[in-house]
Amino acid sequence: MRGRTMDQNPAFPETQHQSVTFSQGLALDCGQHLPAVTVAYRTYGTLNAEKSNAILICHALTGDQYVAERNPETGKPGWWEYLVGPGKPVDTHKYFVICANVLGGCMGSTGPRSPHPNDSGQPWGTDFPQVTIQDMVRAQKLLVDSFGITRLFAVVGGSMGGMQVLAWATLYPEAVFAAVPVATASYHSAQNIAFHEIGRQAIAADPFFYGGRYWGEGVRPERGLAVARMTAHITYVSEVALTRKFGRKLQHAEGLSALGDQFAVESYLQYQGSSFVQRFDANSYLTITRAMDLFDLAADHHGVLGDAFKGTKTRFLLVSFSSDWLFPTAQSRAIARALNHVAANVSFVEVQSDKGHDAFLLDEPDFHNTLRGFLAGCAEHAGLA
Amino acid sequence: MRGRTMDQNPAFPETQHQSVTFSQGLALDCGQHLPAVTVAYRTYGTLNAEKSNAILICHALTGDQYVAERNPETGKPGWWEYLVGPGKPVDTHKYFVICANVLGGCMGSTGPRSPHPNDSGQPWGTDFPQVTIQDMVRAQKLLVDSFGITRLFAVVGGSMGGMQVLAWATLYPEAVFAAVPVATASYHSAQNIAFHEIGRQAIAADPFFYGGRYWGEGVRPERGLAVARMTAHITYVSEVALTRKFGRKLQHAEGLSALGDQFAVESYLQYQGSSFVQRFDANSYLTITRAMDLFDLAADHHGVLGDAFKGTKTRFLLVSFSSDWLFPTAQSRAIARALNHVAANVSFVEVQSDKGHDAFLLDEPDFHNTLRGFLAGCAEHAGLA
Repeated sequence: MRGRTMDQNPAFPETQHQSVTFSQGLALDCGQHLPAVTVAYRTYGTLNAEKSNAILICHALTGDQYVAERNPETGKPGWWEYLVGPGKPVDTHKYFVICANVLGGCMGSTGPRSPHPNDSGQPWGTDFPQVTIQDMVRAQKLLVDSFGITRLFAVVGGSMGGMQVLAWATLYPEAVFAAVPVATASYHSAQNIAFHEIGRQAIAADPFFYGGRYWGEGVRPERGLAVARMTAHITYVSEVALTRKFGRKLQHAEGLSALGDQFAVESYLQYQGSSFVQRFDANSYLTITRAMDLFDLAADHHGVLGDAFKGTKTRFLLVSFSSDWLFPTAQSRAIARALNHVAANVSFVEVQSDKGHDAFLLDEPDFHNTLRGFLAGCAEHAGLA
Repeated sequence: MRGRTMDQNPAFPETQHQSVTFSQGLALDCGQHLPAVTVAYRTYGTLNAEKSNAILICHALTGDQYVAERNPETGKPGWWEYLVGPGKPVDTHKYFVICANVLGGCMGSTGPRSPHPNDSGQPWGTDFPQVTIQDMVRAQKLLVDSFGITRLFAVVGGSMGGMQVLAWATLYPEAVFAAVPVATASYHSAQNIAFHEIGRQAIAADPFFYGGRYWGEGVRPERGLAVARMTAHITYVSEVALTRKFGRKLQHAEGLSALGDQFAVESYLQYQGSSFVQRFDANSYLTITRAMDLFDLAADHHGVLGDAFKGTKTRFLLVSFSSDWLFPTAQSRAIARALNHVAANVSFVEVQSDKGHDAFLLDEPDFHNTLRGFLAGCAEHAGLA
């Protein structure tokens, strides 16, 4: 391990991310060994003397390590500011919060746009090995170890972040006192794989993709990536939320035409797509969506999900949202059932919300109060209160 | 009107479609007048002396006039052979069945790839006026009139075909004895507009789109159109059907990579996309999806859907499918309620099926028996039995 530095992001040399590089590298699920792994991260609050008050937050597909503060590169506010901060449900007065950019990402951690180790000066691009959710967690484990933390008080995350929470609880059960997988599943469904595939096809179809070597051409597959983002965005919101926000409101009453943003919902989607391409790397999008598709906890245990958690002492809180059709309640319930089957300590809450999958990122007091209460109870059991 | 001919399809000169050209043209909702409208169609069975046994079938977004026989151009079997034919629910021994390619389509009716009337020898392309569902119905009315038919025994269609049925029942109530809108809605929802917009953006992003003038360049935006079709295809099937068919079955067990058809569901989607571009014109796709988006029957009646049907004597059968999430049962129920509100004669059946929106095209005996029974009852009332 190299000392902690403010490494430069090779793609945005003007921005510096807090990061640590592990020179021993990482053995990946695919069989390849990744030399020298960099993990970009942020921390909030203070690690106590016993190093027993750390909470790891895991981000979703297009998230980053800036969970509780403005991202200096994108200018966007922290993505979970509702939840993480002084006095908030994940109280940074009390807990030491760590959030790392995932392996394969594009916000400072090793990923497709990191320099290829062959010293060509080119990024990995599509040569970057296909990582898994478990590989992401192994990289996070290196970071957590580097703080001298042997057991995390809690691991919390939504969507793909929830998959990482589940991977933590199965790979390192002794290192996780409490686990909170939110709006997630133990496997990616055929429908979800299909939606991801639309996005990947749109990126690959962009003439500026150049088989993934767009960096060398000084261009980016922006339109393809925008279509991918637009597709994903529809799956993040409920029909009710979309209708409430836009209904059939026309942008331009005069004239009819097939192309152009005639309906308000179209101009909103186009904005979602075009703003996204400014902050995200297409190759990372390909790698990370595929990592989600490959996630299937039960498959690693002969199809019996409960076996993944056998003997676990971790306390689980599972949260789903009633209008989430991307990761529906049934998928969280299946995890709860599997945990019950191995007599694990598990709470399961379906939050009533009409905001769809996005609800996990939004102002949902029922969710936030549930998490606050759960963490308080766990803190008591962990002797932290 | 010119006499009935076997006109050549300008895009596929080797194929001839049965069609009729109306030299008076058509006044469109957008205010433009379309000169000389050609309607390509097929008929099955025999029109009786009273001309009282005609059933018009309306096709969906990517359908065509070959409802009960193989399409000579694509080689695909008739798209509603389960329903239409001798002895079938729409019995061609008994009824004279007409099915026409929609205005704006690409199977012989006037559409974006018809020659532009400016005698440039180029197709209309994106200059083709934005037609509406009602315009499609007006073109069908010219065809029906040309047979000397003053009242159709029934108008039947699913999805966008169901929108046309509703438009028939509101534009020409006296000309429709019975109406069967299947798996449809009285307006296109924000979510459905959003899914269409993904497809349009993917087409417009294809470098071979050339702003819609791809014909002049001798190319076609095949990858963009394929992404559009793949996106739409996901919305046609239920999560259950997709899981039953593919689950998480891997195509290639060895090796992991972000691109390529690793999962069976991906190769299936890619096949759906690539086979579609051989038979469909991208500009037609843009025009027709937009026509669906613009459909909103209540909006034309100050937001009161029932007013669209005030005083109607038409007998309605509304059919929805329980797992259809593109045109959910609630939307059919809303139409039934509006019809009840104006004391119309209406039956409403939700068919239990786990096949999603696609169910209206598939082997669904409950649907087929319901339609058979409804038509038999109507035939009795119409004095056809």
